[in-house]
Amino acid sequence: MADFHPIGTIHSPYTDPAGMPIQPAGAVGVRGTVEVLAEYADGLRDLDGFSHIILLYEFHRSHGFDLQVVPFLDSTPHGVFATRVPRRPNPLGMSVVRIDRIEGAVIHILDVDVLDGTPLLDIKPYVPAFDPRGDVRIGWFEKKVEAVSEHRSDDRFR
Amino acid sequence: MADFHPIGTIHSPYTDPAGMPIQPAGAVGVRGTVEVLAEYADGLRDLDGFSHIILLYEFHRSHGFDLQVVPFLDSTPHGVFATRVPRRPNPLGMSVVRIDRIEGAVIHILDVDVLDGTPLLDIKPYVPAFDPRGDVRIGWFEKKVEAVSEHRSDDRFR
Repeated sequence: MADFHPIGTIHSPYTDPAGMPIQPAGAVGVRGTVEVLAEYADGLRDLDGFSHIILLYEFHRSHGFDLQVVPFLDSTPHGVFATRVPRRPNPLGMSVVRIDRIEGAVIHILDVDVLDGTPLLDIKPYVPAFDPRGDVRIGWFEKKVEAVSEHRSDDRFR
Repeated sequence: MADFHPIGTIHSPYTDPAGMPIQPAGAVGVRGTVEVLAEYADGLRDLDGFSHIILLYEFHRSHGFDLQVVPFLDSTPHGVFATRVPRRPNPLGMSVVRIDRIEGAVIHILDVDVLDGTPLLDIKPYVPAFDPRGDVRIGWFEKKVEAVSEHRSDDRFR
């Protein structure tokens, strides 16, 4: 397996895993920064043409995992891969955030649902045409998804 | 940094990095399987309620990277983080695929744009409500995105 390593750090107002928004939809307007290491700064060329980016990062404050979990939005257990909880076999997080502006190796972002100090692994441009078209079924989220913007995390996935 | 490790393997008809679809949009109807290791099978509970899943995986046939690259869809260079090319500082791939059916620890999938034998790192449920709303700008993809379904890879990112 490749030797994955941080290419930068995500900064946000959230310093505690409890009390956070659980998706960017619950963090509209929340500001943060992505500080890319100087050695990777040239990789940001032309990123300013995009309104949104996908951040892949390590859930660095989550340790261990359970295969069946009760997620923040529900009261019954689901398989961990049918949820977005941070305690996972590989603690990989993914968020689509809005770009405010880019200054050198610092990307100022909006709609940030990520913990302060999070190690960044990759940035990809967000392109809606790459998303599925047609009917999409969302399982147990069906009746829960509207609650995303109000829900906050607690400390269960520390 | 966490010790990332495969939780399974993705199988597809694509055994050579050249000549592949470059996004699921170019692989509509292409069948594959996700074979999850037995120890993680219980984590798939309730995943069958979803029509689409996000696969995170290692681009295991890509080695090294350049910070400025000419992607398959274009003829001018862009920063690697403004592209989806597989040769990246951390070779992490992401694809949204359609679920056909789940049998035990095997997920039969459609619209597969992934190399056969790819090490799987994570599965997340795809939930459209977590995607950005409103205006989305897609930079240099703007005039290229319609070509995605016809374009095939060549061997430049091996």
